[in-house]
Amino acid sequence: MFESILNALLKGEIALEEAEKKILETFYERTDELMLDLERERRQGFPEVVFASGKTTKHIILAVEKFLEKKGIAFVSHLDEEKKKVVKDRFREYEIKEAGRLLVVKKKDIPERLDGTVGVITAGTSDVPFAEETSLILEELGATVRKVYDAGVAGIHRSFYALKQVKDADLIMVFAGMEGILPSLVASLTDLPVIAVPTPIGYGHGGEGTGALTTMLQTCVPGLLVVNIGNTVGAAAAAVRILRRIGSAER
Amino acid sequence: MFESILNALLKGEIALEEAEKKILETFYERTDELMLDLERERRQGFPEVVFASGKTTKHIILAVEKFLEKKGIAFVSHLDEEKKKVVKDRFREYEIKEAGRLLVVKKKDIPERLDGTVGVITAGTSDVPFAEETSLILEELGATVRKVYDAGVAGIHRSFYALKQVKDADLIMVFAGMEGILPSLVASLTDLPVIAVPTPIGYGHGGEGTGALTTMLQTCVPGLLVVNIGNTVGAAAAAVRILRRIGSAER
Amino acid sequence: MFESILNALLKGEIALEEAEKKILETFYERTDELMLDLERERRQGFPEVVFASGKTTKHIILAVEKFLEKKGIAFVSHLDEEKKKVVKDRFREYEIKEAGRLLVVKKKDIPERLDGTVGVITAGTSDVPFAEETSLILEELGATVRKVYDAGVAGIHRSFYALKQVKDADLIMVFAGMEGILPSLVASLTDLPVIAVPTPIGYGHGGEGTGALTTMLQTCVPGLLVVNIGNTVGAAAAAVRILRRIGSAER
Amino acid sequence: MFESILNALLKGEIALEEAEKKILETFYERTDELMLDLERERRQGFPEVVFASGKTTKHIILAVEKFLEKKGIAFVSHLDEEKKKVVKDRFREYEIKEAGRLLVVKKKDIPERLDGTVGVITAGTSDVPFAEETSLILEELGATVRKVYDAGVAGIHRSFYALKQVKDADLIMVFAGMEGILPSLVASLTDLPVIAVPTPIGYGHGGEGTGALTTMLQTCVPGLLVVNIGNTVGAAAAAVRILRRIGSAER
Amino acid sequence: MFESILNALLKGEIALEEAEKKILETFYERTDELMLDLERERRQGFPEVVFASGKTTKHIILAVEKFLEKKGIAFVSHLDEEKKKVVKDRFREYEIKEAGRLLVVKKKDIPERLDGTVGVITAGTSDVPFAEETSLILEELGATVRKVYDAGVAGIHRSFYALKQVKDADLIMVFAGMEGILPSLVASLTDLPVIAVPTPIGYGHGGEGTGALTTMLQTCVPGLLVVNIGNTVGAAAAAVRILRRIGSAER
Amino acid sequence: MFESILNALLKGEIALEEAEKKILETFYERTDELMLDLERERRQGFPEVVFASGKTTKHIILAVEKFLEKKGIAFVSHLDEEKKKVVKDRFREYEIKEAGRLLVVKKKDIPERLDGTVGVITAGTSDVPFAEETSLILEELGATVRKVYDAGVAGIHRSFYALKQVKDADLIMVFAGMEGILPSLVASLTDLPVIAVPTPIGYGHGGEGTGALTTMLQTCVPGLLVVNIGNTVGAAAAAVRILRRIGSAER
Amino acid sequence: MFESILNALLKGEIALEEAEKKILETFYERTDELMLDLERERRQGFPEVVFASGKTTKHIILAVEKFLEKKGIAFVSHLDEEKKKVVKDRFREYEIKEAGRLLVVKKKDIPERLDGTVGVITAGTSDVPFAEETSLILEELGATVRKVYDAGVAGIHRSFYALKQVKDADLIMVFAGMEGILPSLVASLTDLPVIAVPTPIGYGHGGEGTGALTTMLQTCVPGLLVVNIGNTVGAAAAAVRILRRIGSAER
Amino acid sequence: MFESILNALLKGEIALEEAEKKILETFYERTDELMLDLERERRQGFPEVVFASGKTTKHIILAVEKFLEKKGIAFVSHLDEEKKKVVKDRFREYEIKEAGRLLVVKKKDIPERLDGTVGVITAGTSDVPFAEETSLILEELGATVRKVYDAGVAGIHRSFYALKQVKDADLIMVFAGMEGILPSLVASLTDLPVIAVPTPIGYGHGGEGTGALTTMLQTCVPGLLVVNIGNTVGAAAAAVRILRRIGSAER
Repeated sequence: MFESILNALLKGEIALEEAEKKILETFYERTDELMLDLERERRQGFPEVVFASGKTTKHIILAVEKFLEKKGIAFVSHLDEEKKKVVKDRFREYEIKEAGRLLVVKKKDIPERLDGTVGVITAGTSDVPFAEETSLILEELGATVRKVYDAGVAGIHRSFYALKQVKDADLIMVFAGMEGILPSLVASLTDLPVIAVPTPIGYGHGGEGTGALTTMLQTCVPGLLVVNIGNTVGAAAAAVRILRRIGSAER
Repeated sequence: MFESILNALLKGEIALEEAEKKILETFYERTDELMLDLERERRQGFPEVVFASGKTTKHIILAVEKFLEKKGIAFVSHLDEEKKKVVKDRFREYEIKEAGRLLVVKKKDIPERLDGTVGVITAGTSDVPFAEETSLILEELGATVRKVYDAGVAGIHRSFYALKQVKDADLIMVFAGMEGILPSLVASLTDLPVIAVPTPIGYGHGGEGTGALTTMLQTCVPGLLVVNIGNTVGAAAAAVRILRRIGSAER
Repeated sequence: MFESILNALLKGEIALEEAEKKILETFYERTDELMLDLERERRQGFPEVVFASGKTTKHIILAVEKFLEKKGIAFVSHLDEEKKKVVKDRFREYEIKEAGRLLVVKKKDIPERLDGTVGVITAGTSDVPFAEETSLILEELGATVRKVYDAGVAGIHRSFYALKQVKDADLIMVFAGMEGILPSLVASLTDLPVIAVPTPIGYGHGGEGTGALTTMLQTCVPGLLVVNIGNTVGAAAAAVRILRRIGSAER
Repeated sequence: MFESILNALLKGEIALEEAEKKILETFYERTDELMLDLERERRQGFPEVVFASGKTTKHIILAVEKFLEKKGIAFVSHLDEEKKKVVKDRFREYEIKEAGRLLVVKKKDIPERLDGTVGVITAGTSDVPFAEETSLILEELGATVRKVYDAGVAGIHRSFYALKQVKDADLIMVFAGMEGILPSLVASLTDLPVIAVPTPIGYGHGGEGTGALTTMLQTCVPGLLVVNIGNTVGAAAAAVRILRRIGSAER
Repeated sequence: MFESILNALLKGEIALEEAEKKILETFYERTDELMLDLERERRQGFPEVVFASGKTTKHIILAVEKFLEKKGIAFVSHLDEEKKKVVKDRFREYEIKEAGRLLVVKKKDIPERLDGTVGVITAGTSDVPFAEETSLILEELGATVRKVYDAGVAGIHRSFYALKQVKDADLIMVFAGMEGILPSLVASLTDLPVIAVPTPIGYGHGGEGTGALTTMLQTCVPGLLVVNIGNTVGAAAAAVRILRRIGSAER
Repeated sequence: MFESILNALLKGEIALEEAEKKILETFYERTDELMLDLERERRQGFPEVVFASGKTTKHIILAVEKFLEKKGIAFVSHLDEEKKKVVKDRFREYEIKEAGRLLVVKKKDIPERLDGTVGVITAGTSDVPFAEETSLILEELGATVRKVYDAGVAGIHRSFYALKQVKDADLIMVFAGMEGILPSLVASLTDLPVIAVPTPIGYGHGGEGTGALTTMLQTCVPGLLVVNIGNTVGAAAAAVRILRRIGSAER
Repeated sequence: MFESILNALLKGEIALEEAEKKILETFYERTDELMLDLERERRQGFPEVVFASGKTTKHIILAVEKFLEKKGIAFVSHLDEEKKKVVKDRFREYEIKEAGRLLVVKKKDIPERLDGTVGVITAGTSDVPFAEETSLILEELGATVRKVYDAGVAGIHRSFYALKQVKDADLIMVFAGMEGILPSLVASLTDLPVIAVPTPIGYGHGGEGTGALTTMLQTCVPGLLVVNIGNTVGAAAAAVRILRRIGSAER
Repeated sequence: MFESILNALLKGEIALEEAEKKILETFYERTDELMLDLERERRQGFPEVVFASGKTTKHIILAVEKFLEKKGIAFVSHLDEEKKKVVKDRFREYEIKEAGRLLVVKKKDIPERLDGTVGVITAGTSDVPFAEETSLILEELGATVRKVYDAGVAGIHRSFYALKQVKDADLIMVFAGMEGILPSLVASLTDLPVIAVPTPIGYGHGGEGTGALTTMLQTCVPGLLVVNIGNTVGAAAAAVRILRRIGSAER
């Protein structure tokens, strides 16, 4: 881990004080004002996504600038319409992509970094913006996304149709609000990894996605994996972790 | 409503005081110590079921005696094993049927009173005792019950199979715990009335049937009707109300 | 189920490949971009209602156009004022009916398709928009709706009055917010099927309809059937299922 | 408040130090090990009731001894069967009364101290032990209690009957579990003070009395007063506060 | 109850049909479109208060007109600023009083109808609008209200001061949000009836008055009576029931 | 999908009726009384695990017998001590393995079917029985499990140590109760797939695993995948889905 | 406590009536209309902070005027933007400081009154406004605040860095929303007092700070102290209590 | 931090490999099977307390043996009666102290390590076992504990009395269940640090300590610090952190 530092110390290339500082730095990186986690991608296999909620536009822009400078690409989530407009305006010279409340700002020449195919299914049309957020992140990182929307169980032939479209993917992500039963149905008919993403759709008892979340956690189909309601970034990151592991296995 | 009473009054057959008392009695029945609702069946189309939980064995037995005397049949629900044993012992000279925590005590010659067929489906084996309680009541009242158990979505071919068995019923009742998605699936594939009965099966978040209840209320399949978790008596009564109305239409 | 397809295959009228495709299509219907469930009514006895919440106005209009084209009538629920205005404007050449957040857009000559009478009672005036949504759907489908509003238990003579008005209906629907006790009272005095619809009225502990829902589920009057808070479409669909079954019995 | 103390001081009857101590004692009473609140009745108009839950039998017996010595009567609530037996055994030379989990131990000659009549109604038979606890306390303090049990709305004529029995009381207390709608019905038909006591009866969603509590708080009948689920002692104390005020008005 | 009707029937003053109708009318009053409960005050001792939430301005005005015509006074609660302005404008020729979201519209010459004194205490300044609503109703009905505001436990000397101001009242009402402990403190120091009114003040865990409600229900001071969060009308009605009973005792 | 059936039909090898039945059977398998899902493993990549909770011992034994006969191995979960003893006794001639409430009954010669390595970490010692259940299933299916127990954040060096032990696994599973923060910490330091399994450990607010579940869902470390509290079978199945996909990539 | 008053009485310096009044005043202070608790700081060691939520601007300004007059400094919390502007405008001649929704209005010459150093750490940037509110209060009272922001566990090296910066403080306050695990991590690595402040950041299950609160209460690191979600004033007051005690120990 | 290691490396006293291992060990301690955190006290200022819940007796005994061997004292919490008996029996040759569900096993000669005085107040007698657990830990670590039990607000003079007894302590801990208002009252009357410990006492709405917890978090008295329901060990550890800091200030 720090053998090279110790060697440099032994060789007299660095002083003792310098060695201690360098060893510490493998744990405590020098941080700027915002403490952006520029090395997160190396560590967790997924770039830091700027969580815009509760941040000022100034802070968001500062963060995007830093990520553009260091990484050539910046992801911002949970942007309301007003902030999104300001950010898009500020970075209009860059390539901008958006989905739901997510924004990607990037320089043109980012190489794709991720192999693999993800099937993205939604139960209803209202779930689409959430699926689009996850899909955009995955596509930006190089994955192939196969989307089938509005495939809910109320019209079960649509569910079967959807499953058929994604049966060759590496993993399947199912977005559902209301009572959230589509992920269970999908998982019961495939042996692929299935990630269930509850969306904040629904009203009354179990509304705002709480019913969907409960259904997904309480499923009697073994093997369904769940993230929090509307956690499209977390879902993408989980998919990336799995794809990366499959990809390294493939090599 | 009380025309006959008034006529009797006018004809001098009864005194004014007697008339007032009789009119009042059409609203306020004379009641014994337990205030058993012996006429409930006439009013609500469903006999009173003795709710054993929180009652002493003595009170339960007293109630059964009254119902046997007046109606020839008594239903007792929510009996724990200990109380059930005492009650069965006390009435061993009568015909006794039981299912789950429900007991029916009756004289031999009760005529069947209800037409119609009910399809009763359970998602798992653990839901069976609940389905049996509802079925027993329905059968005692004269309905035909067609049962298909263990037809949950984890093996979806079983669900289709179940649906096929009950497609000619007058209404379908689906019992499910855990995430409770079977009733939605059934309702999406039939135009029959569907009553969803959540059972207190499941653990963790959404356990004890709360997840199932939420799923059933939050369903995106229009037309699913719900009763409380484990409310097998209420489910039977609802079925009876519908069957009765269908039956009177048939005549 | 697909005997005719197999016969055509045997007779050489269709090729093997075609036969396989046709068999599959009995399960997986060809779907357009929105996967509208145009055949839902045939399957579930109730037309698909476009759930406007979370959809863009563009998507809503597209769906309405499709349903008008294929069915001659379109139902849209959960419309906020702004979207409702846009949709009404777009389809001003059609007949439009509205109630609460529901819109019906239709061509003039839709034949009535449903027999039967539904009693619709509300506990308060604040529950009326919800009752109106359900009633509009039922009336559009051909049912007779008998409405009695503001009949809550705080003035119990009003409740008795209401019940008297609907005692000849095929089923009774009771809309109530706050503590939601009217459905139980009604169910205790009739043997008709009773559907309880909690409305999101009320404040403090048990507010937003949660108290009403709990009361309806926890009722000690057997046979009350419940849908989710504000689920006026689901309530209508449930009524339709029951009316349809009664109707087919009548024939 | 302490004029007499100051006068005694001025007259030299007591020393300055003694005066300060006496003034303080009007606020801070000398307390024994258990700090029993022997003067609570004078202050709150209701004697301290020993809350047995979480206390050792030894502590309960000690408290009863103190109350017997100072007041001639002791109330103990929340006794499980085992502790109740031990306490009854220890004080078998005294007069003992019990109801539900409540025990009253007393010397024979306690004069009645409270005027007034309380109507006590229960919705079901399972609510009776709770009503009995409250009634016992009220009777021990000298109030007249008129009880009507099993008067729930499922058989509404029983409710009217019950109300008629208590219409001359000073206040009405209604005990109900399940959906807890009886107190609202009673309050809608009387101008007497009505105290609603939810009991821990019921199961599933809104079970253990939570549904009853919600109904009572969310009632649309103005003027219903509520205590916590199963708080029979608090209900009795509230009744006593009202009876006392009526009584002092009567004099 | 209907002796006079029967007598008239016997004397031939009315026909049998008329008699039946008249008897029924003692239960089922003739109702107008809104089914206003004009006789509620006679039955419950408290006038109907128009619940404005969820009603259109047109419906509110219609109701006020009816109450003014029949009773000379109208109470409207839960008015938002916009509706309040419209209603005030419509009835500007009448005497108007307001507090919080409550409006009283009346003709000048309503005689006071209620004796007795109510102590109204608030824990904080934010609770004042709620206390003012209750006080206004009580004062309009003729009660004397003694107000002490901002007397919370954070400065406990203020609490003692408050209690001293109201110690001669017939009953005490304590309004509190946040953790809601003032009612318990007050009840521990008086033997008067105490009604606790939780207000929707507070944030985080137990916010919006839920913590205050819980504290009031869970109090270890016996005899505290509770209404729902922000239920100022219900609190006033409960006070009126108690004052009325005290008043009738006084006579 | 059923090309071979159609071909057999065309060739006259089977009759039309037989063909239709065979096609149907690809969807609706012939089922025995229990409707065991013997082909689930082929469909979902994971064998059916008998959920013992709510089943009679007789039903459990019947299911085990069927699985032994058809598959040579049977998994039973949620066994209490009493049932476990009976089942073990009945199948004592077979090889039996157990962990927590899970039992595996098998014939000796089941070939391993799954490649890959899973790191299993627990936060505390109380989480171990849950980790053992998951590990036993994984090992029985052929996976290599590397376990590090008691590595919670209260002693963070232990967490780092644990992570180091499993850094070459294909995926990491972290079991934690209480506040459940270990999975987040692990996920922040690795790019492997991480499955978080909340255990029902903890008391007070957030007890019984609800706090752990919330923490895992609400994590700000992207990519954490969650199953329900104590869902050790689901966690194993999810791991198997991922391992299988990695394994097929490797080949 | 009132020896001097009694002495003055004995010496005839004050009359008996005056003595009684003076003794009472040590408990019941004379209060103005708002009952401002001007002596709270002496009693609780922390000045009263005006809680703006639910108060009118007029009341807030009146309170600020009083505090400026008596104390030379006024704190106002929970100010929305509109009220804040009005208050700042009214007191523009004074020195004004603000953070988040908190405002400090003061005359120039307030001496610092508190020793000690507080480490203030936030998990994310969205938590900063809350940390700033607490810090501003602490600094105004004379404490030294050492801030390290955006040090969440998602980049754990940042957490270690943060801890290092504050390791010489007297106590550490950690602000975190989402899953709220940073306070536990900090507490596990220091023996200083640690106060955890959940912030209302987060969405879905456990959102609005409820997950953070649960994590902090359920922590398995002994010794973490918690305040309510967003309770920045309470956190500051708790810190002051501890600093004051340390400070008095130092002297 | 590891300067001495690097110096030893430079001086050739240790090899490069040894240096790397030693540096790592400052982070990752060598752990035995149970990974006991023997150095936790040095790091967090509080010894590890064995959490017995969910552990086998064998594991508990093993842990106690290790702590006795290394530290001379072992703390075990959450012991049920059965396990407690076994552990006491096993270590009967050692000095054993117990309180509630806590056990301390120690060799005779542990020097006291902590200065300072803690006031421990309980609201009721049922809270005593919890206060005793915390007190025992504090006393074992050398602190002076001043206890005042049964001082709840229902008899407020007892509360004042209690406060007077502990006013010279370094900090006050208040244990309360039910509505939990005593800590707020205490905090309003002192400027000492106050730690509120909710106990799982209470029933109905807000029962099991949830009401007490809410009250403590929602308090309007600034500066109250809270731990989870029944978290007596955490409360003790928090007190120790504060006492330690005060103590180091004193030196």
